[in-house]
Amino acid sequence: MISVQEEIDVLCGGTIEVLPAGGLEKKLEQGRAEKRPLRVKFGADPSAPDLHLGHAVVLQKLAQFQSFGHQVIFLIGDFTGMIGDPTGKSETRSALTRDQVKANARTYEEQVFKVLDRERTEVRFNSEWMDPMSGADMIRLCGHMTVARMVERDDFSKRLREGRAIGIHEFLYPLVQAYDSVALSADVEVGGSDQSFNLLVGREIQRAYECPPQVVLTMPLLEGTDGEKKMSKSLGNAVGIADEPRESFGRLMSISDELMTRWARLLSLDTPDIEALLASGRHPMEAKKDLATELVARFHDAEAAAAARRHFEERFQARTSFEPDQVTITAADAVGLTVAKLLVQVGFAASGGAAKRLIAQGAVKLDGETARDPSATLQAPGELLLAVGKRRLAQIRLER
Amino acid sequence: MISVQEEIDVLCGGTIEVLPAGGLEKKLEQGRAEKRPLRVKFGADPSAPDLHLGHAVVLQKLAQFQSFGHQVIFLIGDFTGMIGDPTGKSETRSALTRDQVKANARTYEEQVFKVLDRERTEVRFNSEWMDPMSGADMIRLCGHMTVARMVERDDFSKRLREGRAIGIHEFLYPLVQAYDSVALSADVEVGGSDQSFNLLVGREIQRAYECPPQVVLTMPLLEGTDGEKKMSKSLGNAVGIADEPRESFGRLMSISDELMTRWARLLSLDTPDIEALLASGRHPMEAKKDLATELVARFHDAEAAAAARRHFEERFQARTSFEPDQVTITAADAVGLTVAKLLVQVGFAASGGAAKRLIAQGAVKLDGETARDPSATLQAPGELLLAVGKRRLAQIRLER
Repeated sequence: MISVQEEIDVLCGGTIEVLPAGGLEKKLEQGRAEKRPLRVKFGADPSAPDLHLGHAVVLQKLAQFQSFGHQVIFLIGDFTGMIGDPTGKSETRSALTRDQVKANARTYEEQVFKVLDRERTEVRFNSEWMDPMSGADMIRLCGHMTVARMVERDDFSKRLREGRAIGIHEFLYPLVQAYDSVALSADVEVGGSDQSFNLLVGREIQRAYECPPQVVLTMPLLEGTDGEKKMSKSLGNAVGIADEPRESFGRLMSISDELMTRWARLLSLDTPDIEALLASGRHPMEAKKDLATELVARFHDAEAAAAARRHFEERFQARTSFEPDQVTITAADAVGLTVAKLLVQVGFAASGGAAKRLIAQGAVKLDGETARDPSATLQAPGELLLAVGKRRLAQIRLER
Repeated sequence: MISVQEEIDVLCGGTIEVLPAGGLEKKLEQGRAEKRPLRVKFGADPSAPDLHLGHAVVLQKLAQFQSFGHQVIFLIGDFTGMIGDPTGKSETRSALTRDQVKANARTYEEQVFKVLDRERTEVRFNSEWMDPMSGADMIRLCGHMTVARMVERDDFSKRLREGRAIGIHEFLYPLVQAYDSVALSADVEVGGSDQSFNLLVGREIQRAYECPPQVVLTMPLLEGTDGEKKMSKSLGNAVGIADEPRESFGRLMSISDELMTRWARLLSLDTPDIEALLASGRHPMEAKKDLATELVARFHDAEAAAAARRHFEERFQARTSFEPDQVTITAADAVGLTVAKLLVQVGFAASGGAAKRLIAQGAVKLDGETARDPSATLQAPGELLLAVGKRRLAQIRLER
């Protein structure tokens, strides 16, 4: 059996914060003394069940806990999801029906069990304890938090400063989320670094209800394929867990070398330290293919990953025919799609940098005209002939 | 039948605000068209059932509505009363039991029906609709109000400025009070001017629940016998509705002539315009005795009022004996009791001004020593001999 310190070293790897200091050690020792696994909570929003690599960072941390025998509680916040935004102002917060919640929960499960161990995962819905909660109980819950403490939350203070409205119900949601930790007797809660405030409120509310407060563990937020904004389906910069293997592979190959080293650190179990690998002489594109293969294999299987890799290599490296490829780009993928990115996605360039070099050399033509601006975006739906040099041709169909 | 305008003129008399402009007229016309009385709400805090003249100002306004045939709803906020302050920080907000609420409600009824018409009064408890309210309903209710709007309330903005804590549950109480107006289909809500914010929130919440919004009618807050602070039992400057007739009479006689004209305007049905009466030559003390007699008669009966008046006159005006009066001052009444006030209360001076003049003349002795400072307060419990000149003596017992 490994020591507590060794366990801590693994569990704290890649985290942004583990609070309070020394708290995880105490929990682990207590768990060992009582011969029980720790209860590790992760809360999910039932309105957005499409998971991407950003979520995978947190899921892998949960899987690490499981590898030490701990119990993960995958909590679906259906209670608040079914209320939505009572003001009706937020489209992302429109109320879900019970059937939608159930369907979304199934979608979630299909995805999370690509990473989590089903045997050590409890899937729970907070409607279980929140539906029976009375208005009076809700008032009592609210009595455990002050307005001043609540407006410390970054987005609340920002909106107050900017004079944008905050509904009072929005103050209640973090309290409900915190109360979930009471109901679940959570020892640890894991989340993205943007959840830090809510997770700490969990500690305060647990204390108010005379439960031992949880340890809070936050993970970094992954940037999207653009290397700039937080990964998000709606920004079109996400690699989805449930996306097709070939699509995921192509998207993974499109990221910069710099982003590759960062993603590897957060996502790879095989080669988290790609920088060392590159220093030892491995070609960046080969390293990137290894990473893409590993991740596609994790969310699908080894065979699908190998096939995606072969498909990419054939298109990019072993091109022999003069027949143009037939490539269809969906409307979602076309969001913010630049000429440079298109080259990578189609497999005519190994990276954004390589694509830019090809454009600078005057080797890229769109419908016969030489492309000069690598960051020009393609927006109008329709057909487009992409040529690189004389041997690489692709007939692109941009869907509406 | 009187015109709507005549009814409005009476109902708006003595008010601070009637909102929105023209709203009362519309409600009255609508009521007449539908041949139904208006539903006039008044909310009471079940934790402080001792009513005083300050409450009487509002009760009399309600009685005016009744005199035009309207229905008064006397609402006892037992739901919030039974929750109290979940933080346990406020002593005035400690949770009440159901039995305490019932007992307090009976105490209320004994007092309010000295002014209100029992036939046109509905006594309701908000636990009726609030107990069945779920946590989800409470969140929806909160969705109809913003944080910015809530902190417009004077005491909230003051406490935020001063860095004093506001529990989030305190934001929920005005919403519950507002929702009561939805549950009761209130046409009008009457309250003290310090309730203006809460009453207006009632309008907003009624609108959110697609009920016609109520008209808000606020009455001035009565100062206490000191003429300075808001009347309050805890400040010892109140004349209670349920106080003994002699005690009430004495306290009413202790107020300044200036305060008398103001109180008469807000409380007297017989002689609201005492200034005109005084201008016509009536002696101020006689006018004050008439006001005291009228008010004592209202809260007790004409006989008790006449007896209290006789008692006062005998002690003050027809003093013949050299035997000292035996006067007991309760601990509550001794709060902030000055030499000048003691003189009035015992009946040795007709007003604070008269008392000060006696002290200035050196006519007042306490335990044989000449009193020089009219605002010196008496605090230590025990016995005390009060003498004014040679003929007025009182043995005072200050209770602990």
